[in-house]
Amino acid sequence: MIVPQIPKGFRDFLPNKMIVRQKIIKTMIDVFEAFGFEPLDTPCLEYAETLQGKYGEEGDKLIYKFQDRGGRALALRYDLTIPLCRVIATYADLTKPFKRYQIAPVWRADKPQKGRFREFYQCDIDIIGSASAYADGELLIITYSVLRKLGFDDFVIRINNRKILNAFAVKEGISEKDIPNFFRSLDKLDKVGKEGVIKELNSKGLLSKSLEMKLIDFVFSEEPDNPQSFSAIRKLAEGISVGDEGIKELEAVLETLAAYGVPEKYYQFDMSLARGLDYYTGPIFETIVKAPAIGSITGGGRYDGLIGLFAKQPIPATGISFGLERLVTVLEDKGSSQERGTKTKVLLTLFDAAMMGENLKIAKTLREAGLNTEIYYTPHKLKKQLTYAANRGVPFVLILGPDEAGEAMITLRYMDAGSQVKIPQSELVRTIKDMP
Amino acid sequence: MIVPQIPKGFRDFLPNKMIVRQKIIKTMIDVFEAFGFEPLDTPCLEYAETLQGKYGEEGDKLIYKFQDRGGRALALRYDLTIPLCRVIATYADLTKPFKRYQIAPVWRADKPQKGRFREFYQCDIDIIGSASAYADGELLIITYSVLRKLGFDDFVIRINNRKILNAFAVKEGISEKDIPNFFRSLDKLDKVGKEGVIKELNSKGLLSKSLEMKLIDFVFSEEPDNPQSFSAIRKLAEGISVGDEGIKELEAVLETLAAYGVPEKYYQFDMSLARGLDYYTGPIFETIVKAPAIGSITGGGRYDGLIGLFAKQPIPATGISFGLERLVTVLEDKGSSQERGTKTKVLLTLFDAAMMGENLKIAKTLREAGLNTEIYYTPHKLKKQLTYAANRGVPFVLILGPDEAGEAMITLRYMDAGSQVKIPQSELVRTIKDMP
Repeated sequence: MIVPQIPKGFRDFLPNKMIVRQKIIKTMIDVFEAFGFEPLDTPCLEYAETLQGKYGEEGDKLIYKFQDRGGRALALRYDLTIPLCRVIATYADLTKPFKRYQIAPVWRADKPQKGRFREFYQCDIDIIGSASAYADGELLIITYSVLRKLGFDDFVIRINNRKILNAFAVKEGISEKDIPNFFRSLDKLDKVGKEGVIKELNSKGLLSKSLEMKLIDFVFSEEPDNPQSFSAIRKLAEGISVGDEGIKELEAVLETLAAYGVPEKYYQFDMSLARGLDYYTGPIFETIVKAPAIGSITGGGRYDGLIGLFAKQPIPATGISFGLERLVTVLEDKGSSQERGTKTKVLLTLFDAAMMGENLKIAKTLREAGLNTEIYYTPHKLKKQLTYAANRGVPFVLILGPDEAGEAMITLRYMDAGSQVKIPQSELVRTIKDMP
Repeated sequence: MIVPQIPKGFRDFLPNKMIVRQKIIKTMIDVFEAFGFEPLDTPCLEYAETLQGKYGEEGDKLIYKFQDRGGRALALRYDLTIPLCRVIATYADLTKPFKRYQIAPVWRADKPQKGRFREFYQCDIDIIGSASAYADGELLIITYSVLRKLGFDDFVIRINNRKILNAFAVKEGISEKDIPNFFRSLDKLDKVGKEGVIKELNSKGLLSKSLEMKLIDFVFSEEPDNPQSFSAIRKLAEGISVGDEGIKELEAVLETLAAYGVPEKYYQFDMSLARGLDYYTGPIFETIVKAPAIGSITGGGRYDGLIGLFAKQPIPATGISFGLERLVTVLEDKGSSQERGTKTKVLLTLFDAAMMGENLKIAKTLREAGLNTEIYYTPHKLKKQLTYAANRGVPFVLILGPDEAGEAMITLRYMDAGSQVKIPQSELVRTIKDMP
């Protein structure tokens, strides 16, 4: 006997879990498609060279790599963004703007720990071929729409712009080549706190007295969207062209949200948001769910230079990734008690083998009426069949003996109430459909 | 620059392809759920030892294997059946019968060739924990229902039973240990023809004069469901207990189909059907689509011994796998010309940047009315925006200039007809919804 084992960091999703996941994914897809995004799928495997060198040193180590039988180095996809860039470069004649969604697993050879898996789903939307800040703004409208539709209320979309940060860094005398390093330190704010970031910047030799003051007084300020501090922050970036551009983009993004009627409590400019990946070039975003306090649930931004790694010319691009796993965790905690764990509406019990023909006909009628209906295969004792229905969470059970069949009647049992009625078979569909 | 390359034998699915695939998958899921099947998902990676030794010598070679960083041998799943068996053994308290569907990619390190890929989707339904032939019959009712819903009409479900073949082999003097070998030769019938099978059996030393005659006269007969030959074939198996059991199961399966009202032209007993895998123990099935002549489109059968490899006790099981790729090929050829290649209904063109606020409000109204609506991000020339809509296949385009906006009017262009009308904005949703 082989001991049944699942690899560490990997998961099975049994039906009750799958039903929640499918529901969330369906909600997302409905919103994505309402905004004109189309589905794309790419292989789970890519050539290793396609992925390597895109995720920073740490990320590179986490790529699952192996050799195929022909000796080529393959890798399991690490995210959905790099494969998308490869697709865009491969099919040069795709109509642009190209707006796609992809909901698919990715793999990281990470240390498994609570809430962190080696295989997990990403849900990405990206807009390729438009440099407009309206495109960035639309991604945030979608973020807002998805989270509201999923029942979240206490969340905030944090918005910043790499060009603003860039201008700030330049004005503070940080050299061009040190800027990514500066961003990487800023990005640790949530993890190590203000003092931690300042300490790290100091140890990297990037901290001036002026920078420290501005970080504390403005960038790390608790009230970043207070208008007074907004205009102060603007001063940190404006006056040099990249900063002015960033401010213009930021304003366009904020205006888009306002024009669409997204209430202000759901988004804010946050100068302290830096994002970890090197490849962002403009607007960057992240969504924090405050209650329940699960932290970051989306992340993304503009990456106008990335496709140029694969294509002959640079193509502007912007995108957002939703973390399915955290959404699921919250929604399971919230609502799973109300969920039945099954989509089956009706179980037809089997009185004896001779009744199977009747059962099949009734099952057919119910299914054609849109009611998901199971038949029980074996004439076990009724109690066993009822227990099966109860364990599954099936709300309606039908009992049909030869006497009832002879009168074209049937017994309908309401599992939640534990009660039952005998009704004409001809009224079955209507009776079940009328139940709440 | 990295040359954008996709690994050999792997595919991207661009939106127009994905829309067809999603439609087929949705149809399948609707049918599966109508019969009470529930979704399950398992990891793409399993421990190599879980998969090895289950698919025969040839199959074993095609498993993608590699070592993780901890030195454990992992493998990409080769099918959905073995992972299911592992799941059943892992979660011993799952309510049974456990009926699940899984639609997911599998990987085989096969030589890529026309229509054969290294990554492809399987769509499986399995019933675990019932030994009843009604369960097998239900799988075939589902097969029939799915194919009819997808618009297939000229197909036939071939039905046989390993117990019948077993009894036949025993009666023809083939030893217990040679029986799997005998089945493997039979399974090549479609590939190598009658003479080919007989030649191979002869070279294996399994061919007697009597066996040859019976193969030619009955097993390979062109009219296997003609009642006369059915009773002759029955004689080949009956009289020994395994054969009698097989005949009883076969009859129960056929009766189930008849009771459900599946027309006879869609199924037939076919004694020449053997199936390649060793692990089948009872009813076996395969569906052949005759027009268009794409061959086998489903395969499956009962495998009562397989879960016992992982679990402390054997658990009866039966299942069917649908080959998504072939279904897609046919349905693309058939219907793709009628498909739009997009789910977007409306494109809102952008007159100038100042109109974006108006556009966002109108887009919101349309989306809330259930119309998938895109906005164009940049005030390009109208002609360019119309070309974009035409390339995408978007049926309705909206044009809104400041004059129209001032009167609360809007221009609606029907892309198929090339005509347009100016209407009040308040009538927009109804006008679009009233269009066919």
